[in-house]
Amino acid sequence: MTPQNQLPSWNDSAARTAILDFIARITKKGGSEFVPPAERIATFDNDGTLWCEQPLPVQLYFAIDRVKALAPQHPDWKTTEPFASLLKGDLKTALAGGERALLELAVATHAGMTTAEFEQIVKDWIATAKHPKTDKLFTEMIYQPMFELLAYLRANGFKTYIVSGGGIEFMRPWAEQTYGIQPEQVVGSSIKTKFEMRDGKPVLVRLPELNFNDDKGGKPVAINQHIGRRPIAAFGNSDGDREMLEYTQGGSGARFMLLVLHDDAVREYAYGPAKGLPDVKLGAFTQALYDQTKKDGWTVVSMKNDWNRIFAFEEEKETVRQKVAPVTVQTEVEPVGLAVK
Amino acid sequence: MTPQNQLPSWNDSAARTAILDFIARITKKGGSEFVPPAERIATFDNDGTLWCEQPLPVQLYFAIDRVKALAPQHPDWKTTEPFASLLKGDLKTALAGGERALLELAVATHAGMTTAEFEQIVKDWIATAKHPKTDKLFTEMIYQPMFELLAYLRANGFKTYIVSGGGIEFMRPWAEQTYGIQPEQVVGSSIKTKFEMRDGKPVLVRLPELNFNDDKGGKPVAINQHIGRRPIAAFGNSDGDREMLEYTQGGSGARFMLLVLHDDAVREYAYGPAKGLPDVKLGAFTQALYDQTKKDGWTVVSMKNDWNRIFAFEEEKETVRQKVAPVTVQTEVEPVGLAVK
Repeated sequence: MTPQNQLPSWNDSAARTAILDFIARITKKGGSEFVPPAERIATFDNDGTLWCEQPLPVQLYFAIDRVKALAPQHPDWKTTEPFASLLKGDLKTALAGGERALLELAVATHAGMTTAEFEQIVKDWIATAKHPKTDKLFTEMIYQPMFELLAYLRANGFKTYIVSGGGIEFMRPWAEQTYGIQPEQVVGSSIKTKFEMRDGKPVLVRLPELNFNDDKGGKPVAINQHIGRRPIAAFGNSDGDREMLEYTQGGSGARFMLLVLHDDAVREYAYGPAKGLPDVKLGAFTQALYDQTKKDGWTVVSMKNDWNRIFAFEEEKETVRQKVAPVTVQTEVEPVGLAVK
Repeated sequence: MTPQNQLPSWNDSAARTAILDFIARITKKGGSEFVPPAERIATFDNDGTLWCEQPLPVQLYFAIDRVKALAPQHPDWKTTEPFASLLKGDLKTALAGGERALLELAVATHAGMTTAEFEQIVKDWIATAKHPKTDKLFTEMIYQPMFELLAYLRANGFKTYIVSGGGIEFMRPWAEQTYGIQPEQVVGSSIKTKFEMRDGKPVLVRLPELNFNDDKGGKPVAINQHIGRRPIAAFGNSDGDREMLEYTQGGSGARFMLLVLHDDAVREYAYGPAKGLPDVKLGAFTQALYDQTKKDGWTVVSMKNDWNRIFAFEEEKETVRQKVAPVTVQTEVEPVGLAVK
């Protein structure tokens, strides 16, 4: 494949050029910046970097659905926060408790079962759960340009890892099918587990206790723990990814750091640092982070300007349209997505 | 390569046959026990399974050497245990404090520096540190039959992992060169680390606090955390590996569990469960474990009877002998190793 055919959902922008240039340099045999395949490690944040995290992170929808499913067995939840508000549909009050409320929610919905049971719960949920605005499966809410980038890196000898603040056991059941990323290359937050014999069978039981918070400074720690090598490329979209990109840049030789800027209110959501954009707390890309990208030479991708397609289903929609009116060939893709309700 | 050429350091024993049979079954396309390559995960204990752990585990020699090297900067160690006894050469008294003494020793010698600095310390040490009896480099004290087994499994599509009670950052600097096992496939015990900027550079600092003890029930927990798949084959040599083998056996389909029995006092050490053998506390293979191998159908390898060579340098010695007296061809290999001082 020639570079011209690579990353088709990326416009011919500075960001795309920077990626292709980096790959060319580190794969050039005999070149001064050549990196042996074993050291070609790329780490990707998940929420907001590989898939949509708005209006809420996907795992939060999972937790809410689990609370609803488990409520009959927990009559006390009717009067206990954050469950009571959640069951009434009042998410704002439910999450007013901040991180503590989120942790209580996580523990109530993610612990108590074996790892195998939890895997099945996630698989069943992800097979049907849909985005509230697009009505697409959450696994269809992945960014097509990033999907192409994952494949392009792997085609160039990279091992691609997810390094996410999301739950490691929440991501593994679908990451391989969705992104081509195997369980052993998924790194995330976790609760503690315990080995025990249950009905004569060896199982791991998920305990109601945080094990590791894979965010901010935790990301380099987890990268070292799981991979034992410093990445040469890292991709994120928020303040929670800053340390991962700094750590990646801190190694010797060629390095590539990229942040996805959510500035497309029509096809996705706009919650970047530019003036006049809504202030979204979860997954924020702050002005300070934006300034750091300039200072440190990190690449910023504008979803609005640098990507000609955000979701794969945009194309499907066009195809459907062509089927309906085969004579009138559409030459321009009408903006579709989250603004289309 | 035909099965006849495989595992040349293994005698034609039941253990070798069991290994070859297992591999044949899980790799047979269309067979009822076929396992896709992505699921071919094999986990290996390190101390006593892949390399010699007698008379003391290698990492303990490392810690002792570090205490000696650091002693001038710690005058208080002259009167503080376990350091005082260690510096006097009285290992027995130094280790009388049990796990607490070991942890103090580990923290004093393994924490306080960056991960990159520690890696260099280990690399420098392992390049010259030698076994007290054989005077061979510790990296030469690896079991040739297990080395062949690692290569054989990888040739059959397996990912081979170390899952050891030893320190993850102690093993990674030499595991790839010694065993062909990459850093991301090394799992072990760890202390906590912290991301920080030091002199403007992003580093991970090793903290004086235990993060994870990768032994007994911790092994399945770490396997799940790092790999996210249940192994289909597991290899160990002691009570600390029992849960890893149980967990491996607990999955569906073909499974293979093996324990190395140290019953060769001439070529290595004898510290198995057989009557009259010395009672070695570290890395013990207890009678209860031996009984469990029978009950659960695990394979036990007798180093004495099932391996025609234990260390690669045994052959070297023979080669040297042939060079000295080229006319008198040796037809039988004289037992060499730890009994030969």
